[in-house]
Amino acid sequence: MKDIVMDIPRLEDMLNARDRIAPYVHRTPVLTSRFINELTGAELFFKCENFQKAGAFKVRGASNAVFGLSEDQAARGVATHSSGNHALSLSYAAGRRGIPCHVVMPRTAPEAKKDAVRGYGGVITECEPSTSSREEVFAKVQAQTGAEFVHPYNDPRVIAGQGTCSAELIEQVQKLDAVIAPIGGGGMVSGTCLTLSNLAPDVKIYAAEPEQADDAYRSFKAGHIIADDAPNTVADGLKVPLKELTWHFVSRHVSDMFTANEQEIIDAMRLIWARMKIVMEPSSAVPLACILKNPDVFRGQRVGVIVTGGNVDLGKLPWNNG
Amino acid sequence: MKDIVMDIPRLEDMLNARDRIAPYVHRTPVLTSRFINELTGAELFFKCENFQKAGAFKVRGASNAVFGLSEDQAARGVATHSSGNHALSLSYAAGRRGIPCHVVMPRTAPEAKKDAVRGYGGVITECEPSTSSREEVFAKVQAQTGAEFVHPYNDPRVIAGQGTCSAELIEQVQKLDAVIAPIGGGGMVSGTCLTLSNLAPDVKIYAAEPEQADDAYRSFKAGHIIADDAPNTVADGLKVPLKELTWHFVSRHVSDMFTANEQEIIDAMRLIWARMKIVMEPSSAVPLACILKNPDVFRGQRVGVIVTGGNVDLGKLPWNNG
Repeated sequence: MKDIVMDIPRLEDMLNARDRIAPYVHRTPVLTSRFINELTGAELFFKCENFQKAGAFKVRGASNAVFGLSEDQAARGVATHSSGNHALSLSYAAGRRGIPCHVVMPRTAPEAKKDAVRGYGGVITECEPSTSSREEVFAKVQAQTGAEFVHPYNDPRVIAGQGTCSAELIEQVQKLDAVIAPIGGGGMVSGTCLTLSNLAPDVKIYAAEPEQADDAYRSFKAGHIIADDAPNTVADGLKVPLKELTWHFVSRHVSDMFTANEQEIIDAMRLIWARMKIVMEPSSAVPLACILKNPDVFRGQRVGVIVTGGNVDLGKLPWNNG
Repeated sequence: MKDIVMDIPRLEDMLNARDRIAPYVHRTPVLTSRFINELTGAELFFKCENFQKAGAFKVRGASNAVFGLSEDQAARGVATHSSGNHALSLSYAAGRRGIPCHVVMPRTAPEAKKDAVRGYGGVITECEPSTSSREEVFAKVQAQTGAEFVHPYNDPRVIAGQGTCSAELIEQVQKLDAVIAPIGGGGMVSGTCLTLSNLAPDVKIYAAEPEQADDAYRSFKAGHIIADDAPNTVADGLKVPLKELTWHFVSRHVSDMFTANEQEIIDAMRLIWARMKIVMEPSSAVPLACILKNPDVFRGQRVGVIVTGGNVDLGKLPWNNG
C-alpha cells in the first residue's frame, strides 16, 4: 500500500533500481580490519562506497532517478541545488545518459567543488549564498529548462536507489546483527530501512550523527522533525535536516541513534585512514566514532558500517600536517 | 641450476613460499581507475599491497623467512636493521610464529616508527645514526641472541616471498603486457623477475625509481652495481642500493627503468589518493609518475602496477594542508 499523501518507495522500487543502475555503479567491496575489531570488540564490515562512482553512495539514487526518466523528461535534463556529493552524482548519471544536468551552487562555493561538478559534465548556475537567492535562482533555471528536480534525499527514486547499497551488503556478509550509517538528511538511512525491513528484518539499524548537527538525533528522541538553522561540523555532508519521506523511514525502522563530537569524528577518520589505508570523508567516520563511544552496544556483534564517500579535500585534512 | 656462489631462489622456492605464507598474508585486491586509464591511455591494474598485513608487500618475504626456519633456529628468533616496512613486517611475522624479533634502529628514528615496530611485537635496540654504530650494535645483538639475520632484500627467502605478489597478479589479471614496480634495493623487482620469467615470460618488467635516488637506474645503464652514499627522496623506502642477489635478477630480466622527480612523485601520489581513494606511500606512486612521464611506452598496454605499501605518516603528507 502506498501512503496516500507521500509517494513512499517500496521493496519493488529498490529491486527495480538495482537492475536499472547496475551498468552505472560499482558493486563496492566490503573491507575488514583485525586491529579495529580488536579495538571495538565487534566484528565490523565496512561497505566501501568511497570506492563508488563519483566517490559516494549518492550516485545510486541519482542514477535511479536519471535512468528512470521517460525520454521526454530526460530530454529536458535534471536539476538540483547542492554543492556536495549529490551534485557530483547527478552530473555523473546525467552524463552517462547524455542529458543536461543543471546545478545551482552558491558563487562562494570552493572552486575545486565547481570544477568537480563541471568535470562530470554538470552546468552550474551561481546564486548568492542565501536560501532565498538559491530558491529564486533554482526556480528560474527550472522554468527556463523544464528540467526535472531531483532532491538530494527527499525523493522516492533517490531513497530506492540508496537502498541498493544494503541489498549488496547483506549478500556480501552473512548474519549481520546490525548496520550503522551516518545520518544527515536521511537518504542512506531511509534506503537502508527500506531494504532491511523487507529483506532482513532482524538486522538492527543504527544512525550516527555529529553532535554539532544533531537535529536527526533530537527529532528521533522527540518524535517529530526538528531542523537546525545552520549547524557546523567537519562532517559537512551531514548538516541537512530530515524531511517527510526520510522521517517516515527513520521514525519507523531505526533502533537507536548515537552522536559523536568533532574530535571523536576526526580521530575515527584518522584511525580508518591509518589502519585500513582508505581515503574517506569525515561524514563516513561518524559511525566508527559512535561505535568506539558505545562499546557495550556493539561488543560481540557483527556490524555493517556504511562508508558513505571519499570526496575529501586532500589539501585541507582536519588534522595537523607537519 | 643454482649459482655456485650465490643462493639464487628458483621458481620452486616461490611456489613453496606461496603455500608457506598463505595463512599469514592477504591475497590483496587489484583496483582500476577509469579516470587514470583515460589520462594515461593505458589500462592500469593496481595490485594493492598497501592493504597487505603490516601495510606492505614486505610481509611476504619476511613471513617466508620466519616460517621457513627450523624449530631450533626459530627459538632464537630473527633480527634485522631497518626502520621501515621490513622491520614492521618481520616483527609481524615473528609475532605470528611466537618467536622474538630484534630490530636495530637509530635512536633518532621517529617515535611513531618505533611504536609501530613495538606494536607488532618487535624488540628494539637503539644505535647511533651511523653505519658503523648500526653494524656494531647489530653484531652484538646477534651474538647475544643467536637470532637469524633476515636482510630486507638481499636474501633468497625474502625474494622468493616477494615473488608471490606477481604470482597472484597474473592470476587476477589476464593478458598483461607489462608489470611496473618501484625499485630501491630491488627485492620486489627481483621477486617479480623470478615469478614472471618462469610463469609469464612475455610480460615485460619495468622498474621505477626516484630521480634523486637513481642508483639502480645508473647501475642498469652501466651494467654494474652503483651505490649512492646518502640519497634523499620523499620516496623513503627507495633509498637503499642494489646488492648481488637483486642485481642478478634486475640485470637479467628487467626490460627498462624510468625515473621521476620529487614533484612528479608527489603529484602522482595525490592523484591516486584523490581518484582511487586509497592511502599509499610516496614510494608506491613512482610507477604511475613514470607512466605519466613516458606515455608512448605504455599507451594501449595492459600494465600491472605494484602499489608496494601504505605506511605513511598522515601528519606529514608531502603536500600543503590548509
